Amino acid sequence: MKKLINEPGDYVDEMLDGMVAAHPKRVRRLDGTKVLVRADAPIDGKVGVVSGGGSGHEPTHAGYLGEGMLDGAAAGEVFTSPTADQLEEMVNACDGGEGVLCVVKNYEGDVMNFETAGEMAEMEEVEVAQVVVDDDVAVEDSLYTSGRRGVCGTIFVHKVAGAKAAAGGDLQEVTEVAEKVVDNVGTMGMALTSCITPEKGEPTFDLGEDEIELGIGIHGEPGVERTDVMSADEVAEHLTEQVLDDLELDDGDEVATIVNGMGGTPMSELYIVNRRVQEVLGDHGLETWDAWVGDYMTSLDMMGCSVTVLRLDDELKELLGAPADTLALKRMD
Amino acid sequence: MKKLINEPGDYVDEMLDGMVAAHPKRVRRLDGTKVLVRADAPIDGKVGVVSGGGSGHEPTHAGYLGEGMLDGAAAGEVFTSPTADQLEEMVNACDGGEGVLCVVKNYEGDVMNFETAGEMAEMEEVEVAQVVVDDDVAVEDSLYTSGRRGVCGTIFVHKVAGAKAAAGGDLQEVTEVAEKVVDNVGTMGMALTSCITPEKGEPTFDLGEDEIELGIGIHGEPGVERTDVMSADEVAEHLTEQVLDDLELDDGDEVATIVNGMGGTPMSELYIVNRRVQEVLGDHGLETWDAWVGDYMTSLDMMGCSVTVLRLDDELKELLGAPADTLALKRMD
Repeated sequence: MKKLINEPGDYVDEMLDGMVAAHPKRVRRLDGTKVLVRADAPIDGKVGVVSGGGSGHEPTHAGYLGEGMLDGAAAGEVFTSPTADQLEEMVNACDGGEGVLCVVKNYEGDVMNFETAGEMAEMEEVEVAQVVVDDDVAVEDSLYTSGRRGVCGTIFVHKVAGAKAAAGGDLQEVTEVAEKVVDNVGTMGMALTSCITPEKGEPTFDLGEDEIELGIGIHGEPGVERTDVMSADEVAEHLTEQVLDDLELDDGDEVATIVNGMGGTPMSELYIVNRRVQEVLGDHGLETWDAWVGDYMTSLDMMGCSVTVLRLDDELKELLGAPADTLALKRMD
Repeated sequence: MKKLINEPGDYVDEMLDGMVAAHPKRVRRLDGTKVLVRADAPIDGKVGVVSGGGSGHEPTHAGYLGEGMLDGAAAGEVFTSPTADQLEEMVNACDGGEGVLCVVKNYEGDVMNFETAGEMAEMEEVEVAQVVVDDDVAVEDSLYTSGRRGVCGTIFVHKVAGAKAAAGGDLQEVTEVAEKVVDNVGTMGMALTSCITPEKGEPTFDLGEDEIELGIGIHGEPGVERTDVMSADEVAEHLTEQVLDDLELDDGDEVATIVNGMGGTPMSELYIVNRRVQEVLGDHGLETWDAWVGDYMTSLDMMGCSVTVLRLDDELKELLGAPADTLALKRMD
């Protein structure tokens, strides 16, 4: 294993310090925690929107801190949920008097800790709501979840909920529009290689030189099918068709898409995948209103990609197209 | 080798099609070429700013198309200069009557073909200027250059020249400010792994499991020193000190920095490097005015990073901080 790291145990701390060092006017770290919040949090009169989860998925979540998206992002150790007390600190720090929406990816540890944190914050008179994102169409249950996993569709939830909060929506309205995204989004991923965690220093699973894994999650957990190497077009077709099967879209529907890199895949390859994804969508009579291509939710150094499709209506288009100004901003408006 | 590609020979074409498919309202491809231009090019009364070079460095250069940066970007085959006739087509397509600045990385093929293209365009009454970027402090001459190589500092040239053109600067003013960046910027890179080109399908050079290469270029060409694996802090210190030695900055100088990923390195590791880069700059009495962290100029799937430092004055700060709206936009304002 070769990585640009120091002591594996300092990985998350040093990464967070490096983010603050890059953006000292935009984010700050809550003392003694692995929580980053907007430098100007809490914002009076605005619903707070926060998220969090295990590290190793950068720029998820702290990269989405900023105007029009997240107010707070809690980092756990690599692939490990943040603790409930740190989540509660984040919720309190991001409450501008109108309550806080927690956007939670569906993993048992995250869901449990966010629930506990919410209950603790409510005892301190903070109004808290929670949406659980479960967009991965590959598996019904998995190693770390009951129900489907939450993956890259979460970024659309951040964007839409963040925009609604910035536009003055109240907690119920922000929650409802976040749930609308959850109800209309699907994702499926694949890997060419396993990721290597800093602590373990070796691949989480073995994958031969002529094999790929379909239906992979974002923690090096097994996919649903191991198969021979496929071309980029075949990968794009398979992932897109699986997502479309799940979403049951109608001819003429407008969609937004993400072709997301898993961390070790060059952007050129993601564009090659996107080319075919858009063709497949066109063949189904769908209209792509916006297409994102890049590393949005990664799995350390894993090579691979995922395809996310979101069914749009006028409200979602308006919120997805609203300005956002975040650390990792990649054509968000 | 495992890559998300189809036929290696279609790599560049399909990548460009995938970019247009993602951003059809923002960019278009000139027929029969590998040139992308802003959808609204040429912009009447504005100096055109264009660049180009071999593919494999994405998001360089086409990712920087858009308001406040580039009007045109020409892609060659992987690590191969675009042809002079395609460069000329780009220059003509981006001339809004005020002339065109070509931003050229210092490689013999690029410099020669851009010069030829400029002469051809001038015969058609287009005013053309050229700046050659040679920011790599690692080597004085290299496999593909006489003089230093042009690497990630080029992105600062795109940003500053693009902002000056957007602000109404004439060709001479835009050229002068681009040259000011060239005179004040330095970069040094390193690799943990070699890149693998689509056509060749195997590493360009061999690097042992316990070795890294310092002073690497962006084409898999050899670095200046092969050494044992170093920690992220040691890498950050070495690269930053080499760049500072070259720039001869004064105590209290303000700088902008890029910690750039080579394509296969996760963003978390780049932030860990950035943490130490900023500490080293602080130890030298320098003030970081802006810090970029991410994949700006890559070398296919290579794991590694580079550090870029730019000495700032008031003019450069204003232009660096001006809004930009590009495909690959990563916190450009």
